[in-house]
Amino acid sequence: MKILLTNDDGIYAEGIRALYGALKDIGDVTVVAPDAERSAVGHAITLSDPLRVKKVNRGGKFFGYATTGTPADCVKLAIRAIMKKKPDLVISGINLGVNVGFSVLYSGTVSGATEGAILGIPSFAISLATFKNPDFSFTAEYARKLAKIVLKNSLPRGTLLNVNIPAIAKKNIKGVKITCQSKAAYEERFDKREDPRKHTYYWLTGEVIEVDKRNDADTQAIRNHYVSVSPIHCDMTNYDFMDDLKGWDL
Amino acid sequence: MKILLTNDDGIYAEGIRALYGALKDIGDVTVVAPDAERSAVGHAITLSDPLRVKKVNRGGKFFGYATTGTPADCVKLAIRAIMKKKPDLVISGINLGVNVGFSVLYSGTVSGATEGAILGIPSFAISLATFKNPDFSFTAEYARKLAKIVLKNSLPRGTLLNVNIPAIAKKNIKGVKITCQSKAAYEERFDKREDPRKHTYYWLTGEVIEVDKRNDADTQAIRNHYVSVSPIHCDMTNYDFMDDLKGWDL
Repeated sequence: MKILLTNDDGIYAEGIRALYGALKDIGDVTVVAPDAERSAVGHAITLSDPLRVKKVNRGGKFFGYATTGTPADCVKLAIRAIMKKKPDLVISGINLGVNVGFSVLYSGTVSGATEGAILGIPSFAISLATFKNPDFSFTAEYARKLAKIVLKNSLPRGTLLNVNIPAIAKKNIKGVKITCQSKAAYEERFDKREDPRKHTYYWLTGEVIEVDKRNDADTQAIRNHYVSVSPIHCDMTNYDFMDDLKGWDL
Repeated sequence: MKILLTNDDGIYAEGIRALYGALKDIGDVTVVAPDAERSAVGHAITLSDPLRVKKVNRGGKFFGYATTGTPADCVKLAIRAIMKKKPDLVISGINLGVNVGFSVLYSGTVSGATEGAILGIPSFAISLATFKNPDFSFTAEYARKLAKIVLKNSLPRGTLLNVNIPAIAKKNIKGVKITCQSKAAYEERFDKREDPRKHTYYWLTGEVIEVDKRNDADTQAIRNHYVSVSPIHCDMTNYDFMDDLKGWDL
């Protein structure tokens, strides 16, 4: 079994090393990841600049390929230029921080797996719901279990899984919930500041002000100490609204 | 009526100027756009760098605000920091080049409108299906018509319209089709080259090898000389697959 790993925290991140460690004995694992952090890059791909690839060692041994691209670029490069055979599975992560709700659209981690799905390969993204003192052990263990299940069952064409793990001790995890992307509302602000040269700049900041209370929302699962597994697809059409639109005089 | 315009070709592009010209007498139009091209940035937002904003003149008159961010950043900045009141409508474009099929995920133009929809504002993206010698006149005229219709009818929360215009004379356009995002397959390759310092680099290239033959696919509409209007939503959950997944031993 050939497994391709990518992420958006960069090839030197701890999360992708933990993932590699958990998977290396169940398949032939290839790592192709950005050479530095590419968080919140969404489904960016690189068209105006050439891409470069470099072999990277970790712990004194060959670990994988670092690229100057985004997670989606990495998956394309891996499949079209680096790997001799297509992978049977693409996994993106382990991301430092949760990827739920509208963040699914902003997330570089999710977009790595989305690119796998676009290219017809069963794929999942996996994230740990903390930014601080991450303990990747259970998340890596779950990734290994899920990898085996997805390799066995496959996934519908164009659909990937977005997996989020609560950052609590394994013994406190209540189980696994199949979830939908939540519709939480954010109160965003821009912090307006002045640099030493008296020029204005802005930092994006904010917090969730209204949670999605549906029992199967991804955020609710994490809050209630469940692993959240959301099936996400690449077709963004709102089919339900197509008929309404036909009634408009466009 | 307050209308916010953005794009991904940058504030100096011809497409956004044509759009501005077509809309300036039906509403109070604010332009907030990237300071240079940001194509294929997907739904990227800027978290690790501060954002800067600069007033820009075109033709000797104030035209709008250029930012160092992506189209999604522009919409957030406009609504949260630049405009005194929320806009009634967000329009992203006119993009040089079609945005159909999986490109909807990669497109900076679409993501400008997606951000509008996330923030609860009726929004559409509009693109002209050519890269060469664009004549924006009909596209701008159609944007004006559609702006009035969307302002009147509004849109479901979280849903935007992705509009694509065939690059043909107005008299040859057969009408408007309500479409879905097509599932075309691409044969992508990486052109492997060597720079003058003997270092390898890659360019992404490729073409469509299998078209989506559904009559209401966005690509088919354009091919058949119709304006394509696709309702796109921000919820990527594959609800149909949720029940199947519940049967897996996760």
